[in-house]
Parts: sequence; C-alpha cells; structure tokens
Amino acid sequence: MALLLDNEFKELPADKTLDTKLFLESVSHLPPFFDCLGSKVFSPIKSDISGNITKIRGVYEKDPVKYATLQKILEAEKEEYGTEWPKVGATLALMWLKRGLRFIQILLQSLADGEKDETNPNLIRVNITRAYEETLKRYHGWIVQQIFKTALIAAPYKSDFLKAVSKGEVIQEEACLVNLRQFLVNYTATVDAIYDMYTALNAELDYSV
Amino acid sequence: MALLLDNEFKELPADKTLDTKLFLESVSHLPPFFDCLGSKVFSPIKSDISGNITKIRGVYEKDPVKYATLQKILEAEKEEYGTEWPKVGATLALMWLKRGLRFIQILLQSLADGEKDETNPNLIRVNITRAYEETLKRYHGWIVQQIFKTALIAAPYKSDFLKAVSKGEVIQEEACLVNLRQFLVNYTATVDAIYDMYTALNAELDYSV
Ligand SMILES: CCCCCCCCCCCCC/C=C/[C@@H](O)[C@H](CO[C@@H]1O[C@H](CO)[C@H](O)[C@H](OS(=O)(=O)O)[C@H]1O)NC(=O)CCCCCCCCCCC
Ligand SMILES: CCCCCCCCCCCCC/C=C/[C@@H](O)[C@H](CO[C@@H]1O[C@H](CO)[C@H](O)[C@H](OS(=O)(=O)O)[C@H]1O)NC(=O)CCCCCCCCCCC
Repeated sequence: MALLLDNEFKELPADKTLDTKLFLESVSHLPPFFDCLGSKVFSPIKSDISGNITKIRGVYEKDPVKYATLQKILEAEKEEYGTEWPKVGATLALMWLKRGLRFIQILLQSLADGEKDETNPNLIRVNITRAYEETLKRYHGWIVQQIFKTALIAAPYKSDFLKAVSKGEVIQEEACLVNLRQFLVNYTATVDAIYDMYTALNAELDYSV
Repeated sequence: MALLLDNEFKELPADKTLDTKLFLESVSHLPPFFDCLGSKVFSPIKSDISGNITKIRGVYEKDPVKYATLQKILEAEKEEYGTEWPKVGATLALMWLKRGLRFIQILLQSLADGEKDETNPNLIRVNITRAYEETLKRYHGWIVQQIFKTALIAAPYKSDFLKAVSKGEVIQEEACLVNLRQFLVNYTATVDAIYDMYTALNAELDYSV
C-alpha cells in the first residue's frame, strides 16, 4: 500500500481549515494513482488532474501568506475576478480537481466495502462505474460519456490494481483493503471539506464538457 | 487563414537540413489548430502534441549548438542512449509529433483537394478519417481506435472549421482552400523530410498504444 499509505492525508483541524501547502503536498502523490490503472488510455486523465494541481500551486506560490488556506484562495479570487468567478483561476482548477478526488474516493470506498460483480469478482468495472456515476457523469456530455464506457474496457483486474496500488508489495487482498480503509479516513474528510466549502461559498458550477 | 498562413513553415534548404530552432518556432503555432476542432474532447490531443514540442525544446536548449538540426539530435541521442534508443528522449517525441503533423497535413490536403462526402458536403468526417487511417490508426490499439470513432462525432462542420482556421476572417471557402494549398507547400516538404530522416536513421518504431 506504499503509494497511498506512505502519503496519507493529514487529519483536518476541528475548524476544517484546509492548509494549501499541506493539501498540495498530499495531492501531488495522486496522479501516479492513474498509472495503477495500467493503460496509456488513462494518461489524459492524469494530465488533467496534474494540470489542476499545477494551476493551484501557481496561484499559491505567488503569495503563500495571502493564499495560506484553500478558503482564502477562493475568497481572494472572488474579490479579484468579479463576475468571471468562479469559472476562473485556482477556483476552477480545484472545482474539477475535487471531482477527480471524489472519483478516487468512491472507487476505493466501493472496493473497501467489498462491492463486486458476483459473476466477475476480479473485475472492477462495477466499482469504477459507481464512482463515475456519482461524480463526473453529470458534468460530461454524451460523447465523453461514451468515451468513458469504451475506456472502461481497459480497466485492470482487481488483483492487478490492488497490487499496483501497493507498489508491488506482496500483500493479501484483505490486508490491502484494511490499508485502503485506513487511507480513506483523512482523505474522505478532506474531500468532504472541499465540497462543503464550494457549497458554502456558492462556488460550484454545473456546466458539462 | 491567419492561424496557418501567418505562421508559414520556411522553405527547406536543398540538402533538407532541418534547423531545430526554426522547426520549433513553426510547430509552436500548431497546437491551437486543435482548438479549431471546436470541442473540449480534442484537448488531450493538443496536450500530447504540446508535450512532444516541450520535450524537443528541452533537449535543444541544453545545447543549441550540439542540437542545431533535428538530424544532429537523433544522431547524438543514438550515441548517448545505446539500446534504449529510439524509444527515448527527443527522438521519441519527434517520432510521435511527426505523426500528428502528418495527420494535419493529410486532413488539410484532403480538404484542399475537395474530397467530400457527397451526401453531407459540410461534414469533414471523411477527411478526418482518411487522415487517421493513413497516419495514426496503425499505432493505436482497438480501444483507442474506438475512442477515435466516438470523438469523430464531435468534429465541426466544414464551414465552421474553415472559419476557425481563418481565425474568424470572413473568407469564401474557395479563397480559404487557396490559402491551405499555399500553406501545404513548405509544410508538406518539412514533414516529408522528417519521415525520410526516420527511415534513413532507422529510427522508426511500430509499437501501438
Ligand atoms: C486519436 C483519437 C483520440 C480522440 C480524442 C479522444 C479524447 C478523449 C477525451 C476524454 C476526456 C479526458 C478527461 C478530461 C476531461 C476534461 O475536459 C474535464 C474538464 O477539465 C477542466 O476543464 C476546465 C475548463 O472547463 C479547465 O480547463 C480545467 O483545468 S484548469 O486547471 O485550467 O482549471 C480542466 O480540468 N475534466 C474532467 O472531467 C476531470 C476528469 C477526472 C477523471 C477522473 C477519473 C475517471 C476515470 C475513468 C476510468 C475509466
Ligand atoms: C472520463 C472518461 C475519460 C476516459 C479516458 C479517455 C482517454 C482517451 C484517450 C485518447 C488518446 C488521446 C491521444 C493521445 C495518444 C497517445 O497515447 C499517443 C502516444 O503518445 C506518445 O507516447 C509516447 C510513449 O509511448 C511518449 O509518451 C510520447 O510523448 S513524449 O514527448 O514524452 O515522447 C507521446 O506523445 N499519441 C498519439 O497518438 C498522437 C496523437 C495525435 C493526434 C492527431 C489528431 C487526431 C485527431 C482525431 C480527431 C477525431
């Protein structure tokens, strides 16, 4: 479980403040997660998410004090961009990034919960499809939804996926799922806090691509 | 025809030497070409091509004298990387980039030649499909080929595409095609020279993604 557990997300403070620097450090380990899916077909997704992270980091580094928390970034950009906001800057990048984070969360949670296709227990299509339907599908037009269905065929077997997430450590499926559950605690709290922030600041958009 | 004709490729010298700096300057104007296709679906392609250009530029800038021509880059990398070559460095980036360049060439040539779907003369699917079949299809596995077919549905109308390539200048279709033919002269010679170089240096690979 090296990939995920060596880079666990930190516990959030009681007031749910999201420290920008810690957040960037934690999420920077996630793009390689898409390599665990095992096919070059998924590299555009990895690029999209890496691009979001780079965009947020670019804003942060312009003024690490002013942008010390993710909340401060959204508030400062709302001020700065007026009516263009929230479809702009790090606010837009984090809006999409959080959907990719939620996708990963639901996929891992579904695996940790033992949800499976009883006739094909070593496939993870049912878990990926659940994650897609609960997060991204509504933001994708018909063509991208069709592309998703085709890309799904390239999804790895569960055993290969769990091995890849564990970075080749030999580990039993059950031990792997225990580790997943451990990772999901702080990770889920972080993703929830970002979603809550978008709701509270009225920063969410529902256009589709 | 602003987009293409303002940034025409230079005429090649008689010995077909490919000056790296001039080449990089000319191709840097091509990624926006994919925006002319009008849909976000094509942005992963734009990223892939931009990535190739960045990779080649990175090598060039390490030593502009040593890497003054594209031929010199391939020869130096062959020397440097041994058996890893040619699936490495700027050699690999240019191997893929040239396929994207050829794709654009054949698409534009097919339009310039007036090739059309007689029952749907304002669609360019027939031109895009020809370009795909003659360049990339053989390097794509079944899944990516299916994704191509789906993405094709998002292709723009010919009239919109020609207007976009002309950067919004109001121009008659025939005038646009005259400009295309003009652009294609040096462009095609450059792409041909790169293909010839890969053959001469035995640098071509045929694995698929
Ligand atoms: C040669 C033939 C090829 C033909 C071409 C085929 C092309 C296929 C296209 C597939 C789409 C790839 C995924 C990328 C989708 C992206 O379009 C969206 C929106 O992307 C956002 O757009 C914003 C502007 O609206 C900003 O630019 C954001 O950028 S900004 O940073 O600048 O603000 C950017 O992230 N991101 C998304 O939908 C997020 C995707 C997350 C993915 C999560 C996992 C899904 C896993 C699926 C597993 C089965
Ligand atoms: C949420 C749901 C989403 C699910 C995910 C969907 C993902 C869809 C995937 C579609 C593929 C996008 C196109 C990119 C394909 C690329 O995989 C290939 C090879 O790419 C090369 O690979 C090398 C290693 O083998 C190096 O990394 C090269 O990089 S290096 O610089 O590092 O050496 C890199 O260019 N390039 C290509 O095939 C080139 C593509 C050129 C395209 C030309 C125009 C086609 C136009 C079509 C119009 C209809």
